[in-house]
Formats: sequence, structure tokens, C-alpha cells
Amino acid sequence: MSILERINSSQDIKKLDYTELYPLCEEIRSFLIDNLSKTGGHLASNLGTVELTVALHRVYDSERDRIVFDVGHQCYTHKIITGRRDEFSTLRQYGGLSGFPKPYEKLDDAFIAGHSSTSVSVASGMARARTLMGEDYDVVAIIGDGAMTGGLAYEGLEDASSHGEPMVIILNDNNMSISPNVGGMSHHLNSLRYRVGYITFKRIYRAVFKKMPRLYDFNHKIKEWLKSWLLYGNTFIEMGFEYIGPVDGHNVSALESALKLAKDLGEPVIVHVVTQKGKGCKYAMEHPDKYHGVGPFDPATGELKASGESFSDKFGQYLCEFAERDERIAAITAAMCDGTGLNCFHEKFPKRFFDIGIAEQHATAMAAGMAKQGMLPVFAVYSSFLQRAYDMLIHDVSLQNLHVVFGVDRAGLVGNDGETHHGVFDISYLCSVPGMTVLCPASFDELHDMMEQAFFEINGPVAIRYPRGTQGTYKMSHLENEYILKEGRNITLAAYGTMINQVLAAAEELEARGISAEVVKIAAVKPNDFNLTLSSIGKTGRFLMAEEVCSCSCVGGEILSLCAQKGIELKAAELINLGEGIAPHGTVSELMRDFCLDAAGISAAVEKICCK
Amino acid sequence: MSILERINSSQDIKKLDYTELYPLCEEIRSFLIDNLSKTGGHLASNLGTVELTVALHRVYDSERDRIVFDVGHQCYTHKIITGRRDEFSTLRQYGGLSGFPKPYEKLDDAFIAGHSSTSVSVASGMARARTLMGEDYDVVAIIGDGAMTGGLAYEGLEDASSHGEPMVIILNDNNMSISPNVGGMSHHLNSLRYRVGYITFKRIYRAVFKKMPRLYDFNHKIKEWLKSWLLYGNTFIEMGFEYIGPVDGHNVSALESALKLAKDLGEPVIVHVVTQKGKGCKYAMEHPDKYHGVGPFDPATGELKASGESFSDKFGQYLCEFAERDERIAAITAAMCDGTGLNCFHEKFPKRFFDIGIAEQHATAMAAGMAKQGMLPVFAVYSSFLQRAYDMLIHDVSLQNLHVVFGVDRAGLVGNDGETHHGVFDISYLCSVPGMTVLCPASFDELHDMMEQAFFEINGPVAIRYPRGTQGTYKMSHLENEYILKEGRNITLAAYGTMINQVLAAAEELEARGISAEVVKIAAVKPNDFNLTLSSIGKTGRFLMAEEVCSCSCVGGEILSLCAQKGIELKAAELINLGEGIAPHGTVSELMRDFCLDAAGISAAVEKICCK
Repeated sequence: MSILERINSSQDIKKLDYTELYPLCEEIRSFLIDNLSKTGGHLASNLGTVELTVALHRVYDSERDRIVFDVGHQCYTHKIITGRRDEFSTLRQYGGLSGFPKPYEKLDDAFIAGHSSTSVSVASGMARARTLMGEDYDVVAIIGDGAMTGGLAYEGLEDASSHGEPMVIILNDNNMSISPNVGGMSHHLNSLRYRVGYITFKRIYRAVFKKMPRLYDFNHKIKEWLKSWLLYGNTFIEMGFEYIGPVDGHNVSALESALKLAKDLGEPVIVHVVTQKGKGCKYAMEHPDKYHGVGPFDPATGELKASGESFSDKFGQYLCEFAERDERIAAITAAMCDGTGLNCFHEKFPKRFFDIGIAEQHATAMAAGMAKQGMLPVFAVYSSFLQRAYDMLIHDVSLQNLHVVFGVDRAGLVGNDGETHHGVFDISYLCSVPGMTVLCPASFDELHDMMEQAFFEINGPVAIRYPRGTQGTYKMSHLENEYILKEGRNITLAAYGTMINQVLAAAEELEARGISAEVVKIAAVKPNDFNLTLSSIGKTGRFLMAEEVCSCSCVGGEILSLCAQKGIELKAAELINLGEGIAPHGTVSELMRDFCLDAAGISAAVEKICCK
Repeated sequence: MSILERINSSQDIKKLDYTELYPLCEEIRSFLIDNLSKTGGHLASNLGTVELTVALHRVYDSERDRIVFDVGHQCYTHKIITGRRDEFSTLRQYGGLSGFPKPYEKLDDAFIAGHSSTSVSVASGMARARTLMGEDYDVVAIIGDGAMTGGLAYEGLEDASSHGEPMVIILNDNNMSISPNVGGMSHHLNSLRYRVGYITFKRIYRAVFKKMPRLYDFNHKIKEWLKSWLLYGNTFIEMGFEYIGPVDGHNVSALESALKLAKDLGEPVIVHVVTQKGKGCKYAMEHPDKYHGVGPFDPATGELKASGESFSDKFGQYLCEFAERDERIAAITAAMCDGTGLNCFHEKFPKRFFDIGIAEQHATAMAAGMAKQGMLPVFAVYSSFLQRAYDMLIHDVSLQNLHVVFGVDRAGLVGNDGETHHGVFDISYLCSVPGMTVLCPASFDELHDMMEQAFFEINGPVAIRYPRGTQGTYKMSHLENEYILKEGRNITLAAYGTMINQVLAAAEELEARGISAEVVKIAAVKPNDFNLTLSSIGKTGRFLMAEEVCSCSCVGGEILSLCAQKGIELKAAELINLGEGIAPHGTVSELMRDFCLDAAGISAAVEKICCK
């Protein structure tokens, strides 16, 4: 029986002998590589946090104490050692374990995560609740240096440093979040060799003391104290934290000692842990960004299974083309250079490329500043992460009608990352932004042509929203706001984006069953008067619209409201969408099936309507 | 002719003799007090920044250089000296000058402002655009220490510290944003006397050197260098900034020298300026929070004209009542203790009160953490400021269905603060949050009863949205989701919140003109099946709904969509709302009139519909 097979909780970890801890970590690493090579998942970050997680469970009890993971994709070891080892092969699969902490999965998962920089805030709330309710459990936040670039982390640290509530914040410093880190905090953490202040101090120090050996011993202590203080803890100590570190993040006993000390201090403490992403796995160590989030791969070589060309790839490729034509075009990413397909732009136009860290608010306001002064910025960002910049979309971009282009990637259902990552609120929040144009390409060619529109024909803010993954059978480009792709008599089916593939397939199925559906493709969901759709509805008398978004301010609802305002009579109408917008993880097609958003679901709904 | 009368641009300021600058500042102060006593406005912050603004215009040219004000309510001196002195009596009035920077008003206003912590980001974008486009103007951001508590400011500083673009960031340190400052940055700025690190250093320093006078002189320099570095610039220098300060913010020539030095450095520079809110005006200096944003007052004594009891006052009062009953209730504010009516709660329940600074994201995530562990947090916040926490509403609160109550103050049109402050997007963004209950009290009594519902009957996230100001003639409390306040035959009028006052008045007017309107009052806009409203529409065949929000996902649209889905036939329907959601400044009644949202506008629209 392996050591790992004996571990089902924090309690079991505590029973182990020190000599068993390293073999355990190695077993966990093999287990991770073996499983993730089949399921896909977040490889590098989990390999980097094996010892840290084991040490956490040596010191804390995850059922009772609250261990709050930031972002959460580094929680695999935690899941494996808290009784979910046997289910681990279902990770990120439909009906299986989530790739993120989920309290409904297990009490050991203290809080949901998925977006960045939330853990210190959440842990502060928990620590306050603990004290106010007279309880005595411990609260720990684990946050990476990349997540530290998000303003929310800073807001949390500001508060935590002053409230005095006992809590431990573990800074998992791997010098690399998703893309290599940028900005001041990164600068601070990297500053060991470059710190002008420290170097100057050292120079003066030497000049003063080199001729006075007797003072050396005493002053050596001052020097060491100043050195560690100036180099590492400075910012945190200044904020009011106790600071412990840096600690070797791959030394379980050092970690255990540091965590025990932090726990015993009974106040807000930062424990600065240095880890290496991909630790123990050659290819993941060498290319931690490539092995950040992966699909299935060959565990021996790391070779990734090929995936087709994606909307993100095409977005990056077309952007280079337009940037060649127009020097005003600049690209911004919030630590997602690779994910949003901007790598080629970064290489070709380094001066016009800006990776500003996990800081969507700043990216949006910064883009607004650029646009105000005549540049043509494009911010490529995942739909669910742009939620964080909602206020800046309105306040900084829209109120001055600034020409900023948003490449809204991962719109609609994203699949295995699940509920925190689906881009299902964007139609709602983007359409509420005054003057925002919202374009929905249904194919790569349409993406190209809509980008051209967005850059050279439209004024004011423009969002182009496109899904994760590749295009479907529809490969044409129709920029008309509404376009009849198929004429029909019995019902009007409208769709935008790649949903048109499901609708066209449904229309074909229905034709075979004797139902004639008219298919209207919508290009811009805003602005759009929907006159063609309305006149089609006037003709067919029936309407169905399928959308991969939440029901609130879905486009189908707007069309029906217009029907009512214009007195268009309807025999039947149905809206298929994601309701409140919470969808689990699984493949996109599994989720589409469950929400009746695939061709089968749509045609079944139409049949019901038409046979009423 | 006074000195002020000769000033119409940055250029005119530059022509003045040094001896004229102080009299000018005094003239500006008198001018401000005199004008604001009639128009109302932001008094204390503007009195505190007179010299700083004059110095800025001595060094920069506001038509050419870009001076970006953070929050923007401290821009009055800037407006007065850039050719808007004669219009200043129209400040914040309908059709008059805005109380915030507005590029459409004057080229000298570089960027719109109103919300906090945006300036560094915007200025970074401008500085980048300047360099990429080969231009050479200067870019300056002016940010208060309060605005520094917002995470966006930190994201901006992180980027600015590393991009190297020449720009100047003026930290206007008045040790008081809107409520007294909280958190780590404030701690840092206040730390002169309390810095353990510095004191320890000084103690050791003295121990080492007190017997070695010969070394003193040389080491005195080291000490002075370390002292200024450790005490003031440390955090900023660590981030990579040049740091100048602290500078006396009421000494024009010191300010001018510091700004010139900063300008000449040609890199990102922080100029730390210490100012006093309310400077030169006794009552404003003594009570800077009271004189932050005021209505008309007596310029001699500062006595404020009495205003009636507001929804905010009642919210705070009722909250104390419920907190007395239930120890789990805790209150959170983002630097708006007074504005949201929480002063009494703060006094009565100091342990359960949390002012976390201008950090709406943190407030929301922190509340989620508290709720997860069994507390019952309520976050009182202005509608337009909660936009900043949209992602946390979904991700941290909603996905776990946590019981957090949001007191959404300043919902609907707010009046004189104008477009950045109107709470007109909240129906849209709140209704898109999964599982969010959105309650709209129409009177003080309803506010009370809905708070009781929110705390003790409803699970999951709840938002109670109420307007700025007081209640109208409707003073009852009906918690039924839909309630027929007046029966009628010809048309159904639905409304929620205080809009019911306008609708009832319109219905009365219409009755006199022979039109019988049925009035349905809606309590919760979500969740609500609107069955009663739909059956009323089925009866009357006509529908009109007036809402003080943007058209996107307005409630009337949802009701009409349901009509279409349920096959309810309509003879006529109309939605009156704020369209895209951009409304200027003016009194609420002036704005309501312009958008046809008052009783006259509603009854005119109804007449048109019914006589079709």
C-alpha cells in the first residue's frame, strides 16, 4: 500500500513520520501527472504546491479551519488528500470533481474560487465572523504572486493589515502567474539583486565599517536585520503585517515550522513561500506557461494532443493584420497573452503590446486613456473576467464614447472549467453599457470582418464576443445586422454567434419532419432594431430563440418585448437559454444538451410549439 | 479689478508675480465659499486644493498637457481659472457647469471623473498614447489618499511604476477621504511617529554611534537618507517610482518647485503633497466630512439648510433596530458611513461596523466570507459605486447563494452630481446576478418591512434599492410582490419604488380626463412571475411602465416579453425609461420632466396610447 493510499484527511497527514513526507510528495506528483495526462487540467501550478499543501494539512485541519485558495486551480493536492483520491480521475469531467474548490463537494473546500485575487478579502470576512461569533478556528489564505497584481488583493491586504484579526496569508511566490508577472509587486519580489536602495546601503555600510573590525559582529546583526527587512518584508511590514519568509516552498519541515509560527502569532501574518511551477516534471518546469492549463498529454514527453485552430488564434492573427495597416492599434492583455491568442502580436509589435497583470479594471481604464488621446486600443479578455471591469466600461469608456475595442473571448459555455468561467453574463452586462456595440461573429471569416468594422467603421466602444474553441459548419460571413439564412413558413428561429450552427442543423432536422423554419442570423445584438426578425415573426407567427447566456436581458426577450410594443401577434414563442446563468462543468456539448441548446433540443422545442 | 478677474487660462496664471499668488488663492477661497453657499457642492476638498491647483497651472498648460483629476470633485479651482469663472454660479444646476471634470465642457478637462481611483490608470494610457504617437505633452494624475484605498489605484501604480513612461502622480494627502481613512496605505502615510521599524533603527543607531562623535557627521547623512526613505517614499520607491515629498500643499512656490522637478525627471514620479481639507474656512476645517458635499449653507457660520429625513437616514435607523434583535447583523461601508446613514450603527455597534475604505470589491468579497461563516452582513453602498463589485456579486456571493444584504442607496436619478452618480444601471446588473432578490421599497415603512424580509425571510443575496432623498405621498407598506393600488379599465400602469408616486398622480390626472388606469405596484422586481400584472394587462389590453433606469433589461421589457410568451394580446404598450442610461445633472424633478418620467409625462403618454 502506498503512503498516499493511507491518506484521506488532514488527520491522516498529521500521523505521518517526517521520513514519509517526501515519498508522499513524490507519490502525489506521479498521481497528478498520471491523472492530468488523461483528464487535462492545471498541471504546473499543482506540481509547484505539493509540499505547501502537505505542510498546510500538517498544521491545520481543513474540516474545521478555513483554507481559502486564491484562483483555486492549485487545489488538486488538497482534493487528493481530503478523501477525493478515488474520484480524481473524474476531474473536470461532466458530473465529476470540479477543478476548483467547491464547498458543496466537500466541507474541506472553504470557499469557491476561479477568478483571481479574492482570497484575502474572503479570509478577512471569515476571520471577522469567527471572532464576532466567539469561535476559534484558524483562517488561511493562499495567494500567488500573480494574483497579487489584482487590485482586489491589495484592497484585501490593506484591510487585513489593519484589522488585526488573527489570520495567515501565504504568498505563494513562483515568479510566474499565468503569463510572466508584470508591475510593481513583481518588481518588489524580484528585487533581491536589483534593489538600488539595498545596494547603496551596503556600499555605505562597507565604507563605514571596513576599518573597524571590532564593531563588525554587533553590526553584522544590524545588517542582517536590515537586509531581510529591506529586501523582503518591507512592503508587508510597512502595511502592518508580521512577515515570515522567504521559506523554501519545497521543504515540508521548513514550511511546517513557518506555518506553526505564523499560527501561533495570533495576528495577521504574511508567510512568503518560494515555489517552482512544474516542480519535479521536466517539461512543466521548463515551460510553466505552456503547462498551466492543458488538455490530455503524453505523461512521458509532455506532448500535448493537437487541438484545432481557435477563435483566439484567429483573433490574434487578424489583429496582426490590422495592426500592420494602422499604427494606432495597440493590444492589451490582463496576464492572458497566450490564452487570448496575442502571442504573435506580442512578437511582432512589442511596443504596442501591454500585459498589465491580472488587472482588468486597470486594463479598461488605461485603454480609455489611450483612446482619449487618439490610439485605438483593443483589450483581449475572457468574458467572465471582464465582469470585473463593468464599472470602467460604463464610467471610463462609455460616458465619453471612447473608441476601445474589446475582444471578449470565452463567451458562452467554456466547458471543463465550469461555473466560474462560463461567459454567460456578457450579453447582459455589455448591452447595458451606454453606446456599446456588441458584435457576435459566427465564423472565423465573420470575426475577421467584424474586427475590420470595429476598428474602421464603428465609433465608440465595441465588443466582439466569440467562444472558446473553433468554428462550426457555418463558415460564411454576413455582416448585415439581420440576415435570413434560410426561408421558412412555420416558425422564426433567430440566433447570433456560433449558436447559428445548432439552429441551422435543427432547421434541417425539422424540414425532414415537415416543419418549415425561417432562420435569421443576427450580427450585432446591439444596436439592432430587429426589424427583419420582427417581420419574419409577423409572417410565421411563431418565434424561438436559443442563447448560450443567462435569461436576464437575453436578446430573445428584447425581441419579444418589441413584438408586444409593435403589436405583432404571436401564436407561440419560446426562449431557450441558461436561466439564472449557473452551469456546471463538463464538455460544451454535454452542457448544451442538458440546457436543450443543441440541435436536438432546439428541434424538439420547435416541434412542440408548432404542434400546439 | 481683482487678481482672479484677470485669470482665464493656465497662461494667465503663469504671468502672475509671486506676490500675487497668495492673494489670488484667498480670492479663490472667498469665491468658492460665496458660490457654494448658494449652489451647494464639494466644499472641503476644494478649499484644500486651491494652492495645489494654482501651482499646477503655473507649471503645466491644461489645454495641451493632460491633468487627470481622480474622483474629480476637487476640480472647482481648475474650472474657475480656466475660463469658467463667470458660469460658476450655475455649478451643478440644470444646464449649468458640472461639478466634475467634463471634456465636453472645456478642453482643459482631460478626462471624465466621478468614481474613485481611476486617474493613474487613465494617465498611464494617455502617457503611452503620447509616446506611441510621438507627441510630447505632459501627463499628470492627482489622486487623494482616500482614493489610494481603491484597488484600481494600486493596479495603476503597479503598472506606472514599471512602464517608465514620463508622468507625474500627485498624491494629495489630506489624511481624510470622505470618511476618515482606513487600511494599510493610510497606516503607511500616518506612520511618522509610530513606525516601529524606524524607531528600532534609531535606537540601534544611537547605541552604536553615541560614543563615536567623529563618525557622526558622515553618518548623519546616512541617517537622514534612510529616515526619509524609510518614512515616506519607501513603498513608492520600492515599486520603482521616483519620489518627491512630502511637500506643503499650501505653499505655492514649494509646490511649483516640486512639480517642476518632477516634470523634468522624465520618468514616473510621485509627488507627495500634504494638504488640509477645508483650509481657510473654520467650520470646514473642523468638520471636513460634514462639509464634504453639501447643499446651500450660510457662508458666515456654515449652518446647513435643513433637509428632510432621507431613505439613507431611515435605513441606518432601521438597521440599528434589527441589529439589536440579531447579533449576526454586521454593517459594511466603503468610506460612505455618513452618506449611507450608518453613523448611528457605527456608534451603537462599533464591533460590528466595518469601514473598509473606497474598496467596493473587497467589501463585497469580505461580506461573502462573513456570510459563509454564519454572520449576516449588510453592505450599504451607492448604486453607481456597487457597479465596481459586479464580478464579486456573481462570483463570491451568488455562486454559493450566500445571504448578504445590499443596501443599494442612490438608486435612480440622483440629481446634481449627474451622469457618473445616477444609479440607473442597477436593475440591469443586479437582476443578472444568479439568485439575487431585488426589493424596491416605495416608502419608509416599506423599507423597514423589506429589510425585515431581507434579514429574516429571504435566503441568498438580497438587494434593497432606494433613492436619494425622501419619500413621496405614498406612505403605506405592501410587501405583496404585486399589489393593485388602484383598479381601472383602460390601461395597466406598473411601477416599483418611489416611481409609484408619479404613477398614482398620473392615474388621478387621467381619471379626471376620463381615462381609467389600473395601477400595479411591484415590490420585488426579482424574483417575480408578474402574474397579476399580466392578468391586469389581459383585462385592460394596454400597458405602460415608467422606470428611472436604463432600457436594457428594464422590468417593463421583461413583462412585455412574458406577454408575448403567454399570448396576451395588447392593443398598445409603451416603456418610458432613461434609454441608454446617460442623464445630465440638474434637480431630480427637472430630469424626470425631461425624460417624461413625471406625472405629467406619464399621463401625456397614456393619453396618446388610449386615444390611438
